[in-house]
Amino acid sequence: MGDISVSNGSGKISSPLNGYRKSCWYEEEIEENLRWCFALNSILHTGATPYQDIALLDTKPFGKALVIDGKLQSAETDEFIYHECLVHPSLLFHPSSPKAVFIMGGGEGSTAREILRHKTVEKVTMCDIDEEVVEFCRSHLLVNRNAFCDPRLELVINDARAELESRNACFDVIIGDLADPIEGGPCYKLYTKSFYECIVKPRLSQNGIFVTQAGPAGIFSHTEVFSCIYNTLKQIFKYVVPYSAHIPSFADTWGWVMASDSPFSLTAEDLDLRTKQRIKGENRYFDGKTFTSASTLSKAVRQSLSNETHVYTEGAARFIYGYGTANRHEQE
Amino acid sequence: MGDISVSNGSGKISSPLNGYRKSCWYEEEIEENLRWCFALNSILHTGATPYQDIALLDTKPFGKALVIDGKLQSAETDEFIYHECLVHPSLLFHPSSPKAVFIMGGGEGSTAREILRHKTVEKVTMCDIDEEVVEFCRSHLLVNRNAFCDPRLELVINDARAELESRNACFDVIIGDLADPIEGGPCYKLYTKSFYECIVKPRLSQNGIFVTQAGPAGIFSHTEVFSCIYNTLKQIFKYVVPYSAHIPSFADTWGWVMASDSPFSLTAEDLDLRTKQRIKGENRYFDGKTFTSASTLSKAVRQSLSNETHVYTEGAARFIYGYGTANRHEQE
Amino acid sequence: MGDISVSNGSGKISSPLNGYRKSCWYEEEIEENLRWCFALNSILHTGATPYQDIALLDTKPFGKALVIDGKLQSAETDEFIYHECLVHPSLLFHPSSPKAVFIMGGGEGSTAREILRHKTVEKVTMCDIDEEVVEFCRSHLLVNRNAFCDPRLELVINDARAELESRNACFDVIIGDLADPIEGGPCYKLYTKSFYECIVKPRLSQNGIFVTQAGPAGIFSHTEVFSCIYNTLKQIFKYVVPYSAHIPSFADTWGWVMASDSPFSLTAEDLDLRTKQRIKGENRYFDGKTFTSASTLSKAVRQSLSNETHVYTEGAARFIYGYGTANRHEQE
Amino acid sequence: MGDISVSNGSGKISSPLNGYRKSCWYEEEIEENLRWCFALNSILHTGATPYQDIALLDTKPFGKALVIDGKLQSAETDEFIYHECLVHPSLLFHPSSPKAVFIMGGGEGSTAREILRHKTVEKVTMCDIDEEVVEFCRSHLLVNRNAFCDPRLELVINDARAELESRNACFDVIIGDLADPIEGGPCYKLYTKSFYECIVKPRLSQNGIFVTQAGPAGIFSHTEVFSCIYNTLKQIFKYVVPYSAHIPSFADTWGWVMASDSPFSLTAEDLDLRTKQRIKGENRYFDGKTFTSASTLSKAVRQSLSNETHVYTEGAARFIYGYGTANRHEQE
Repeated sequence: MGDISVSNGSGKISSPLNGYRKSCWYEEEIEENLRWCFALNSILHTGATPYQDIALLDTKPFGKALVIDGKLQSAETDEFIYHECLVHPSLLFHPSSPKAVFIMGGGEGSTAREILRHKTVEKVTMCDIDEEVVEFCRSHLLVNRNAFCDPRLELVINDARAELESRNACFDVIIGDLADPIEGGPCYKLYTKSFYECIVKPRLSQNGIFVTQAGPAGIFSHTEVFSCIYNTLKQIFKYVVPYSAHIPSFADTWGWVMASDSPFSLTAEDLDLRTKQRIKGENRYFDGKTFTSASTLSKAVRQSLSNETHVYTEGAARFIYGYGTANRHEQE
Repeated sequence: MGDISVSNGSGKISSPLNGYRKSCWYEEEIEENLRWCFALNSILHTGATPYQDIALLDTKPFGKALVIDGKLQSAETDEFIYHECLVHPSLLFHPSSPKAVFIMGGGEGSTAREILRHKTVEKVTMCDIDEEVVEFCRSHLLVNRNAFCDPRLELVINDARAELESRNACFDVIIGDLADPIEGGPCYKLYTKSFYECIVKPRLSQNGIFVTQAGPAGIFSHTEVFSCIYNTLKQIFKYVVPYSAHIPSFADTWGWVMASDSPFSLTAEDLDLRTKQRIKGENRYFDGKTFTSASTLSKAVRQSLSNETHVYTEGAARFIYGYGTANRHEQE
Repeated sequence: MGDISVSNGSGKISSPLNGYRKSCWYEEEIEENLRWCFALNSILHTGATPYQDIALLDTKPFGKALVIDGKLQSAETDEFIYHECLVHPSLLFHPSSPKAVFIMGGGEGSTAREILRHKTVEKVTMCDIDEEVVEFCRSHLLVNRNAFCDPRLELVINDARAELESRNACFDVIIGDLADPIEGGPCYKLYTKSFYECIVKPRLSQNGIFVTQAGPAGIFSHTEVFSCIYNTLKQIFKYVVPYSAHIPSFADTWGWVMASDSPFSLTAEDLDLRTKQRIKGENRYFDGKTFTSASTLSKAVRQSLSNETHVYTEGAARFIYGYGTANRHEQE
Repeated sequence: MGDISVSNGSGKISSPLNGYRKSCWYEEEIEENLRWCFALNSILHTGATPYQDIALLDTKPFGKALVIDGKLQSAETDEFIYHECLVHPSLLFHPSSPKAVFIMGGGEGSTAREILRHKTVEKVTMCDIDEEVVEFCRSHLLVNRNAFCDPRLELVINDARAELESRNACFDVIIGDLADPIEGGPCYKLYTKSFYECIVKPRLSQNGIFVTQAGPAGIFSHTEVFSCIYNTLKQIFKYVVPYSAHIPSFADTWGWVMASDSPFSLTAEDLDLRTKQRIKGENRYFDGKTFTSASTLSKAVRQSLSNETHVYTEGAARFIYGYGTANRHEQE
């Protein structure tokens, strides 16, 4: 009988239709003038750590979504794009098989999960400053449960800069899975020329590769931080490869930059071969051709990147939306 | 240190401010062109019965909110207005002390709760068609827990019309706590002239009073169903008193109509005296002056009511928003 | 053929249905956690004066709407409620026929319009600080066109306090049509005890009446400023009458307070008689019974008002939502 | 003095801050559970043709936006991506210089504008069924004004299928700038195997190329229609090239499919050379490398396309979101 909801029910109003509209929504301001809204199934968890507010939402369009300080970090249905792109290129391009990998941030666990799929990897050091976020993700994100239990994973709760400074050993790959560089923001100092030069590069082993997430990389949004991160890394490393991919839940194309003093010279076929040899299981997003496409930027973005002159230093930052002019000024 | 959220955190973006915007919202279409949105703390429960969809939300502005089929039924912070207005006038105006009360609908339990505060009441028969809603409310709405356990409460799961027809005994007060009369909707037949004449009135004892919720009663919205319910009851009862009150969470003024063949002739002071004598505990909204105000309608509404000619019959309905023209046509 | 929209049209996507959803909306944050949204027909005008931002919107539910600094001021379909309630009680209660009326603020013109309907009124002095808002309303609000042209209207662009101080003549009625008293806000000083005592009262003629809009007066919201304005006026005037009415477009019940050293002692019938004698044309909202209802507050509001101890002085304010904690602190 | 809004103004509430929130929004349901919202400057125009509803909005994030039947068609700031991708590949890959081009749909004028930049083009036939949309765009979209006046443009108001059938001459390139193929929708029949085989292909000259917009092509959304359009064209043409690009205002990656019986065999460098030779002015998005990236699909999309078995015929359709289940059923 379907749409005959017969009720002399408990309320003032009752609809005879089940086609009523979705009524619970998650809403994010991508920019001041732009909103992106997901219908909600439920709010699984909310909490606050000393560093940030956290929420785990069950959204209709993108599954479970991790939200930190009001910004979507990761959504169940498409986080594989971000994490495969962040991890696999650097590990595959590494000429000898990478054994030791360092993650700056990464508390969600997905970056570690993808690294641990590489059979050659013997040790993953994940260094996140927020213990509660790590605990939250460990207990709520089932997909990363195995990663968190993997004996090859060393979890350190510390500031990534301090941790790297305190270490003597080198890493084959260092991965930046950090918040974007906002002046006055938590991670700004982990994107500067001096950090790359004095902290990161000395901790890379021979042929070592550094890769970092690099913020939005869309046709308009790439000028926010992507082009500057690229240009800053170019000051320090001989070979720098920017690449990008559209992530639906972010409502934008996202960017990463990979850098090394050894050249990146593999064909799509080489990448596919190494993928087969080195990675357990099947990638969902990344393969050789995908990387060809991702690392061939469109005309407008290529031009911006080659014209970029800004270099991140401790005294000169670029901003990304989300924090308000007021705030920036307060923190200056 | 407040607004310096230092994190080399687990995500792509992290805000240095805790002033980011509320991100989870409940949204209701009051009318096609009008929305009313509450920030959410959490979604406590969602479910579906054979008759309707139910949700219990924890909202920031109005506390816990019961939503049925996408329409707010009742919010923790102000449901007392609706339920005190629905219950107390009829029970207080009843000349001898009312002993037996029948509730059509009322599964939420709040109507029973208010009735059971009347010391003279010996039996409350609550007749709701949707057992699962009743169970849901019994287990989730703590404020009504005592009411559900009160030995004077008789809970019947049945169609209110069928139940009243099957009974021989009479009631001092019959209360309609039903969804609005939508043609083709679940409760339409419980607002018609013939229902009042043939089913309700015969089940009222000497000096008995009938009262029903009567939909929105705002300066514009009272023409949807309030004026018709009033006019329909006028065909059957000698004395009919419409009254209204603004309910913040409904974003409107709400209406009730009380009817009897005995006159309603108490002053505000009389009502206050009877309140003291008959009702346990303190009312939050209702007293004599409140009723004076509530039952003195504004010029525009008084005129509409006195000009109303429509009478609800099984073949001639009036509509309220929320169900779509398409739906109405399908059901014709 | 209705819903067969045959188009090999100009776009990527075209809907075969005309039932698609409303897509342009005006959204107001009533409180931080509460939004009120109107579907839009069009944005008729936007602009900025030295004092404030203005917009005139054509909304589907409430017609043309004047929005100042992101807050709805007045909507075509129901501004008559606000303006009839602000103007008619004071002018009708005035024992001899009021001739001279002073409006503090009122640039929209609707307050003047209602005053000018009183046949006994010889002069209306409207004193608004923002010339551009007055010009904007004069040219866009057709309903007030006659009022703006009435030879009895004297329009002064000035701060109301300075203007009243500079005057020697007295007024039969002084009307406050100002923004709410926000500490640090534009109008705060026009709601203080000393302002009422030293500026307003000396400019009232024998039996003169002062009335002011008094902010939201809902069951919860009346504690924001309504109860304090009431209590502050009680310090200065012998007779003080608070009253309220639900205004749909404001999503709340609104309040006004009327004060005098002469008693307010008319029945509903008296008010109706004077309305007939003194006012040209028909009121849409106000009459004697409406005022009985409006000035009989509900139990909860009556109790708050009689318990209120706060008095507005230049050093002690109460706040209303809409300006942000940050802002308040900046202004301290 | 900026943020000191001193006003004894015309309203009830006035904010001392100019940082109040954006209040007018355009809202689109990308999918049932996904909304995309742009702050509005103004609503420039709304209207209805016999075929569809039209609106021209001035949005803050994307400039002027053309909305048809509640769906964004084109936004000022990024329509160049869509239109350069639709037009330039086919015209550049054409071995001899294309002279005659036919546009199915395209009433907005932007497709014609891009074609007319090709110096070799002698005649563009634009065939749109909705004369009013064409007139609307001609008068409102200044950026296309020159294109509408170009003597090489022949504008025909007709159904594209009927028009092509009635013609004897052939075209070097035929471009489909139509709404997506929705069963029962306006354009469904212009995406079927039989239409391509019997209507389009016979009207292509030697080495002729057909290209069509092909709906969303994101990692999830490409299965809606993109993969089927690709597979349907593969049944009819020897060489078929699918490609895609992220369009920010669409909140998705978009797809196009190009098809011919002659091979597409140009390098990125060849394309750049031909661009210089044939196209007046500078492209903003398209160049050789951009096409390399756009036509190298990611792993997941490539696999879906190669596994696709569905072929559009008049009796078997695939759907895209936006029209409601109810509607689909009605039209079956």
